[in-house]
Amino acid sequence: VLVAAPDLAGREEILGVHTRGKPLGDDVDLKAIARQTAGLTGAELENIANEAAIFAGRSGQQRLRQVDFEEAMERVVAGLQQRRVVTEKERRILAYHEAGHAVMSHLTGDLLPVHKVTIVSRGQALGYTLNLPTEERYLHTTEEFEDLLKVYLAGRAAEQVVFGRVTNGAANDLEKATELTRAMVFDYGMSNAAASRTMRADNYALSEETKRLRDQEQARLTDEAFAEALRLLQKHRAALDRIALALLDKETLDKDELAELLGGVGQESRSSETVGTVRAIAAE
Amino acid sequence: VLVAAPDLAGREEILGVHTRGKPLGDDVDLKAIARQTAGLTGAELENIANEAAIFAGRSGQQRLRQVDFEEAMERVVAGLQQRRVVTEKERRILAYHEAGHAVMSHLTGDLLPVHKVTIVSRGQALGYTLNLPTEERYLHTTEEFEDLLKVYLAGRAAEQVVFGRVTNGAANDLEKATELTRAMVFDYGMSNAAASRTMRADNYALSEETKRLRDQEQARLTDEAFAEALRLLQKHRAALDRIALALLDKETLDKDELAELLGGVGQESRSSETVGTVRAIAAE
Amino acid sequence: VLVAAPDLAGREEILGVHTRGKPLGDDVDLKAIARQTAGLTGAELENIANEAAIFAGRSGQQRLRQVDFEEAMERVVAGLQQRRVVTEKERRILAYHEAGHAVMSHLTGDLLPVHKVTIVSRGQALGYTLNLPTEERYLHTTEEFEDLLKVYLAGRAAEQVVFGRVTNGAANDLEKATELTRAMVFDYGMSNAAASRTMRADNYALSEETKRLRDQEQARLTDEAFAEALRLLQKHRAALDRIALALLDKETLDKDELAELLGGVGQESRSSETVGTVRAIAAE
Amino acid sequence: VLVAAPDLAGREEILGVHTRGKPLGDDVDLKAIARQTAGLTGAELENIANEAAIFAGRSGQQRLRQVDFEEAMERVVAGLQQRRVVTEKERRILAYHEAGHAVMSHLTGDLLPVHKVTIVSRGQALGYTLNLPTEERYLHTTEEFEDLLKVYLAGRAAEQVVFGRVTNGAANDLEKATELTRAMVFDYGMSNAAASRTMRADNYALSEETKRLRDQEQARLTDEAFAEALRLLQKHRAALDRIALALLDKETLDKDELAELLGGVGQESRSSETVGTVRAIAAE
Amino acid sequence: VLVAAPDLAGREEILGVHTRGKPLGDDVDLKAIARQTAGLTGAELENIANEAAIFAGRSGQQRLRQVDFEEAMERVVAGLQQRRVVTEKERRILAYHEAGHAVMSHLTGDLLPVHKVTIVSRGQALGYTLNLPTEERYLHTTEEFEDLLKVYLAGRAAEQVVFGRVTNGAANDLEKATELTRAMVFDYGMSNAAASRTMRADNYALSEETKRLRDQEQARLTDEAFAEALRLLQKHRAALDRIALALLDKETLDKDELAELLGGVGQESRSSETVGTVRAIAAE
Amino acid sequence: VLVAAPDLAGREEILGVHTRGKPLGDDVDLKAIARQTAGLTGAELENIANEAAIFAGRSGQQRLRQVDFEEAMERVVAGLQQRRVVTEKERRILAYHEAGHAVMSHLTGDLLPVHKVTIVSRGQALGYTLNLPTEERYLHTTEEFEDLLKVYLAGRAAEQVVFGRVTNGAANDLEKATELTRAMVFDYGMSNAAASRTMRADNYALSEETKRLRDQEQARLTDEAFAEALRLLQKHRAALDRIALALLDKETLDKDELAELLGGVGQESRSSETVGTVRAIAAE
Repeated sequence: VLVAAPDLAGREEILGVHTRGKPLGDDVDLKAIARQTAGLTGAELENIANEAAIFAGRSGQQRLRQVDFEEAMERVVAGLQQRRVVTEKERRILAYHEAGHAVMSHLTGDLLPVHKVTIVSRGQALGYTLNLPTEERYLHTTEEFEDLLKVYLAGRAAEQVVFGRVTNGAANDLEKATELTRAMVFDYGMSNAAASRTMRADNYALSEETKRLRDQEQARLTDEAFAEALRLLQKHRAALDRIALALLDKETLDKDELAELLGGVGQESRSSETVGTVRAIAAE
Repeated sequence: VLVAAPDLAGREEILGVHTRGKPLGDDVDLKAIARQTAGLTGAELENIANEAAIFAGRSGQQRLRQVDFEEAMERVVAGLQQRRVVTEKERRILAYHEAGHAVMSHLTGDLLPVHKVTIVSRGQALGYTLNLPTEERYLHTTEEFEDLLKVYLAGRAAEQVVFGRVTNGAANDLEKATELTRAMVFDYGMSNAAASRTMRADNYALSEETKRLRDQEQARLTDEAFAEALRLLQKHRAALDRIALALLDKETLDKDELAELLGGVGQESRSSETVGTVRAIAAE
Repeated sequence: VLVAAPDLAGREEILGVHTRGKPLGDDVDLKAIARQTAGLTGAELENIANEAAIFAGRSGQQRLRQVDFEEAMERVVAGLQQRRVVTEKERRILAYHEAGHAVMSHLTGDLLPVHKVTIVSRGQALGYTLNLPTEERYLHTTEEFEDLLKVYLAGRAAEQVVFGRVTNGAANDLEKATELTRAMVFDYGMSNAAASRTMRADNYALSEETKRLRDQEQARLTDEAFAEALRLLQKHRAALDRIALALLDKETLDKDELAELLGGVGQESRSSETVGTVRAIAAE
Repeated sequence: VLVAAPDLAGREEILGVHTRGKPLGDDVDLKAIARQTAGLTGAELENIANEAAIFAGRSGQQRLRQVDFEEAMERVVAGLQQRRVVTEKERRILAYHEAGHAVMSHLTGDLLPVHKVTIVSRGQALGYTLNLPTEERYLHTTEEFEDLLKVYLAGRAAEQVVFGRVTNGAANDLEKATELTRAMVFDYGMSNAAASRTMRADNYALSEETKRLRDQEQARLTDEAFAEALRLLQKHRAALDRIALALLDKETLDKDELAELLGGVGQESRSSETVGTVRAIAAE
Repeated sequence: VLVAAPDLAGREEILGVHTRGKPLGDDVDLKAIARQTAGLTGAELENIANEAAIFAGRSGQQRLRQVDFEEAMERVVAGLQQRRVVTEKERRILAYHEAGHAVMSHLTGDLLPVHKVTIVSRGQALGYTLNLPTEERYLHTTEEFEDLLKVYLAGRAAEQVVFGRVTNGAANDLEKATELTRAMVFDYGMSNAAASRTMRADNYALSEETKRLRDQEQARLTDEAFAEALRLLQKHRAALDRIALALLDKETLDKDELAELLGGVGQESRSSETVGTVRAIAAE
Repeated sequence: VLVAAPDLAGREEILGVHTRGKPLGDDVDLKAIARQTAGLTGAELENIANEAAIFAGRSGQQRLRQVDFEEAMERVVAGLQQRRVVTEKERRILAYHEAGHAVMSHLTGDLLPVHKVTIVSRGQALGYTLNLPTEERYLHTTEEFEDLLKVYLAGRAAEQVVFGRVTNGAANDLEKATELTRAMVFDYGMSNAAASRTMRADNYALSEETKRLRDQEQARLTDEAFAEALRLLQKHRAALDRIALALLDKETLDKDELAELLGGVGQESRSSETVGTVRAIAAE
């Protein structure tokens, strides 16, 4: 899915196309917007441009301002602003769930840095963590995808670590994790058992053995990632509590606030460690 | 299914839309109606607004009264009032079946409090128990869903405990229980064996082993809930008899009558107990 | 299927609708007709009303008489009167087949009392036994459905007991029995192994194990019912012979003639026995 | 399939309908034609009536004669007269194949008596044996269907007995035998393992075990019938040779010629023997 | 498939239909053309007639000559004349591949005599062997179909015998062999395990065991035929070399040239041997 | 797939068709273009002709030049020129990935010689290796297809050898390898277990055993090819490094530069060795 989306240059170009004929304020930086919308499709970018125009119009502005684009981005990413009444109990679970994502993003290095965490509900989502990659990435190693799995599963892991039980709030995270392991096992040959072939079948039937192998490898990848997520959040429980309490207090934390709260916490990622090694080798 | 329905604010708004242009009596409290219709869809809410107008018209009223909305709510929830001739034997089974639901709702705490129980047939339903949640809920723990299963299965459990045999009258309850366990196992990762992945498959085939795991976990969840429902109703047989006899006598019991009959009966729910603990932890 | 059909009041109402505008004789008792048509659909009731008008017309009558409705009911239930030439050998098998149904209906109590038995062919059916329930029933226990299975399978059982071999004449009975066990196992949770969940699947695949369980339980239910039907007909062979010989002699036996021939034969039904117990318990 | 076709009276009626408006010769006996067309559908009977009119027209006749109907019947049953060039070797195989059917029809009694055997090719069929039942039959016992299987498989059995090898000429016979065992096992409960239920499934999936059972029982029925056909033809090899040589000589044998050639050969059928017993019992 | 195509008389008739209105030269012998086109469908025969007219037109002829039909036949059988550039290495493989088919046709007797062999590419085919049956055949024994399998597989067998490796050039031959074994096992009851029933299923599901049996028998038939083809070509390697070298030299060999090269080579076919025996038996 | 595409002459003809009406420069050599586009479809060739016209137009040329066709060929093969920003880390992985393909193409002889290698991204591809066959080939041995598999898998193998981990960059290579093994096993009879039959099924169900066999053989073929690719690249690590470093330096390497860098490296292919032997045998 990451591969199919337009790249940085492509996104800037698409934004240019859809703001053609709309006067832009001096502060508008399409490149910056493009940088913050990695992974979005062309249709979603068009949507952002249109929403920005609507916001500007509502504010009685002739020109589209950077703030209009930012509001539009949030709406498209997390749905329309709509306050939901959540119970106090749900609010606490939410705070820890989102804190779990944030802490794990930090622990797994620069793969998927956190831009913003909130427990203010938007659209379908009760809360959300906005991740923006620092640089465009096309190639991912198995180890990096495994880190990504940990980030997806860290919300549920935090619920388990703190409350000893889990909720249906992680349904969407589980779906994302399952889709990723599916691609890893079916398309990328990243299972232990089938490193040199795909296991997707369109026009013919696979054997029961192959289907079992696929399911087994998918299960192994998510189980290991979830176990690792549990271990890491238990180890960094103090950081998890700090962020959760700050969320209960302020509701939304931006990049800088997170950085301060996660100050002394180092990275714990097999992928980033090895990346260092790789660089050394590749640079020789 | 609970998640897909509009929330409290959404329901009030929807009711507002569908009563626009219809004069409302001073006693009409749309927020109260919204509070009593959690889980209903927009179409069902529209239906209630239309039915209320019809009732008001039949009573020769210019304005819609709160009583019209209440009658309309019942019709939509349990179908149109239509007297069915049930045998005396069926009436007794019905009374215990509905009493089972009511007792279990009480035992599992404030998750799904009972508003009304009746053995007067309406539409397809021979009798029914009307549950209205006290507060809007979005997140549910595994333990809460397990309590919900017990409430669904308590009608059949009561038949088994009292008569030593079961009827086809629980078919709809079983379907609801099966749908819930399906979501728990397929989507929410609430099975013992797959806590970190979904097991729904749209475009490809799952292995026999995964399908077996899904069925096994669904069976385990309902079997355990049914066994627990049997145990709890045997333990609280006196309360069950009290409510069943009152139903045979009065046919319909409201919230207050139920409260009186269930006076000394405490709650027996793993989920609500732990919720207390959770609150303690989360509040620290 | 019994549940989906209109109830007594509904049938009377439907008959009223379809006789509107048709003058009815003084002897016509729509309630009685409704009582005799339990299980029929609205379309079939409309069919009866129309057929009755045709019969009256053919007899040169201005008004529809009760006898027109009775002829119409028979046509709709068993097809149009059409004499088929059956061999003498087939006639004997038929007589015992239908006698089997009749004896078993008697043995299983008031669940499905026999109104008429005939070996005169009508439509597709070579012979038939007309069962009319004495009272409206909505709820059925497992044991009552098991009795119903015995009635369905008693035709084949009689062939086996008397001739030591079976024919294709029971194909329709087997289909009805299979449909009933399917509902018991798939929808009503009446299998030994799955008392608290349904086993019907629309949008996803069940495991082989669950499918095996379903088939096994369906097979057990029909096998046990068939074995019991064989045992009961062997025990009551004399009554079976009396009815079969009377059928070979008179071709058609009505309720009173059957009652006389089954005079000294008691009921043998686990379900009706327990029903007594249930009543005692429930009445306390 | 036999059951679905119209009966004797129905066929006579249908022939009456389709010859209405066509003048019939004095010798035309529609009842006789109906008697010779058991198993044919309404469409095929209509076809016969039309073909007869065409034959009469070709012969310059104003009225349809009995001979026109007889020619028409043959065309409909075995296709249009069309001479195919078969090799001498094929002719010998054909003669024994058809002789096998004829001998087996005789051995299995009056179930399916042979009217005519020929090795003159017609339409798709290289040769054929025309069976006409002596009386209308609706009910068939398991044993009678087993005899029918032997008749279907006797063509191939004769090839095997005489030439020690088999040909693709029996493909249609095998299909008919397979369809019959399918109905016996799926619909009529005539398998050893499932005497009281059907095993056809329209809207849901059967278990692998049930599918295995079905296939096993179908295989057992055809295997046993084929083995018995081989045994009977070896035992009656002399009769088989007599009929095959007569066919090679005359190409077509009618009922009387067959009767003469099979003069001293008795019947060997479990079903007809038992039928005698059944009659005795049923007549008591 | 052989059975479904029109026979000799049918083909001549079809050719007559499609040349109606086209003047034919005196040398045109439609019966001869029909004799050379056994197995072709009506559409393919129509195609030949049209192609012949086109060839005649190109040659400036008013009448269609026999040579036009012969060119047309080749085009329809092997596709349009189109020279492909094959490498020297491929040419050698082709020569042995086609020589394999030719030698095997000879060894298996008069079942499928070779009319022409060529390594000149036409249409999709790089080279081809044209087989024309000497007489019309409707019935085939199991042994004859087994011989046919050897002819189909002899191209690949020759590659294996001579070069010790195989190519994708046999893909079409394998498909034809698989289709034939499918008919033998599914429709003709020519497997070891199911001599009396078909194993094709349209409207219902076969068991895994039956599907395994089908695949097993198909595999056995082709494996045995391939092993026998290897054995026979090794034994007759000298003949294989003679024909391959002649093909490399002349590119095309006709019936007479083949006969000369295969002069001293006898037939090696279980089917033709037994046919002799069969004739003796059948002629007695 | 190679077989279905037009051959050399066909491609030249197709190019001729699609350049009709477009003036060609004197230097345009359609035969040379056809030689460089083996494997392309007619639609892709048409695309090249149209793109060449567009390039010529952009350059203000009246006539299409050879350089226009060459640019067009690259665009069609690797997509439109579009610079993507790849990270330094990705660039290193890319260089080794493409170097792996190039080295393996060299090692497997003249089967698929490398024309150009680049790490400049084009369209979807981050980098690519352009292979052009030296001569038209129709027939391929099993051993040649196995070499082709090694070339497909050498990109991933190089990642593994150098960095000790793999990326999703090989997804397309794995798909090509899987399609090839599918054809080998399903259509060409090149599996160990089924040398004489196809294993593709359109209208009926294959057994689980056959499906397992297919998957097993596909897995074996790719696993062996991948293991061999790893072994060969480890052995020729120096050559791999030379090409990767040259790519990091120059970004694109043509045929001559590759030849120089691979100067002293011999071929290591079972297929080409044996081809020599084959030639000797076939030439005798």
